Amino acid sequence: MNATPRKDRSGRPRDPGVDRRITAAAMQVFGRVGWAGFGIEAVAREAGVGKASVYLRWNSKEDLLTEAVASRFAPIAEIDNGDVHADLLELADLLLDLFTGADGLAARRMAVESHATPGIAQRWQKVRESQVRAARAIVKRAVARGELDPRTPVTLLLDALSGAVINHAIATPPHLRARVEQDRRRYAGELVAFLLASLRQMPREVPGE
Amino acid sequence: MNATPRKDRSGRPRDPGVDRRITAAAMQVFGRVGWAGFGIEAVAREAGVGKASVYLRWNSKEDLLTEAVASRFAPIAEIDNGDVHADLLELADLLLDLFTGADGLAARRMAVESHATPGIAQRWQKVRESQVRAARAIVKRAVARGELDPRTPVTLLLDALSGAVINHAIATPPHLRARVEQDRRRYAGELVAFLLASLRQMPREVPGE
Repeated sequence: MNATPRKDRSGRPRDPGVDRRITAAAMQVFGRVGWAGFGIEAVAREAGVGKASVYLRWNSKEDLLTEAVASRFAPIAEIDNGDVHADLLELADLLLDLFTGADGLAARRMAVESHATPGIAQRWQKVRESQVRAARAIVKRAVARGELDPRTPVTLLLDALSGAVINHAIATPPHLRARVEQDRRRYAGELVAFLLASLRQMPREVPGE
Repeated sequence: MNATPRKDRSGRPRDPGVDRRITAAAMQVFGRVGWAGFGIEAVAREAGVGKASVYLRWNSKEDLLTEAVASRFAPIAEIDNGDVHADLLELADLLLDLFTGADGLAARRMAVESHATPGIAQRWQKVRESQVRAARAIVKRAVARGELDPRTPVTLLLDALSGAVINHAIATPPHLRARVEQDRRRYAGELVAFLLASLRQMPREVPGE
């Protein structure tokens, strides 16, 4: 996410390995216990670092958790294959990995609990808006390339794509997670084909707004 | 849900008004604090009844919570308008009401937390399976009537429909809930039209398995 090395609060450059260990631990702790049990001490213990190492990097547990989850969604902004099918496939696959993978419970909890959590709500809303903008940009570029109709219902398309993935993740009991993981690419492929088929039903129109 | 009056554990008929007050309170408490803070005492206080009134009706907080959430999903099994468009519209509207309405946070929490909650996981899995069967029956009847192709991807269709609703609910910050509530029927209509358009793209085949 950051090209220049970040500094800790004492002004020293941060070790990205330790950063990652702490954010990974934050996802695990939050996934396990939710916001009610989330705290710097539990995260430090999980990461095998001292509490001071966490406090040198993040002002609060709200900042730490938001950044940890946001970093997992960040690659959405980098999707750009010049082809709508490839872009939506990559988006579906990324979201499947996120919601059904090792950090899935944390990602799903954040999706559900964030609005109800003071201190998290506003921070997460900003992150969410930037993810939605990045996903909408995928569709807008496809319209600009003439691949999709300018009247494409962008919100519906992205609700159906992200939502199907979340629903698929929610519907999967833990003992079937490994199978879902194996089947990820097939599911993503069928989902994207299904959604693009709906768009092809639209009466054709010359692209350009 | 029950045609015959239920009895409490002392053998007396239960007052459905009190039952409803307790299950409504259970949804509110669970929505507010999640499983970590859920308990019979908090529910009894919220419902304005004594703890004994709750214990006469439910063996455990796990049973109470599962039944409270299940009762809100139960109407899915009753959807049968003899027309796939009307059926899917009713399903989308019911799910929108459930996930964005007053009990939305409890419904979303259950969707996310249930697998990770011992004592809830198995109970909820059973309820979920009966909901999924009821939703699949809607599509199967449409195939039997010749409205949909026998090769309709049932799981994808229902993942996209339920998922879009959940995503829509998750994306809506509390201050926009009232507007989403007003817009519910329009959103459901557009979503169902979008998904049915995809199915119409399938090459036609004579229905019947």
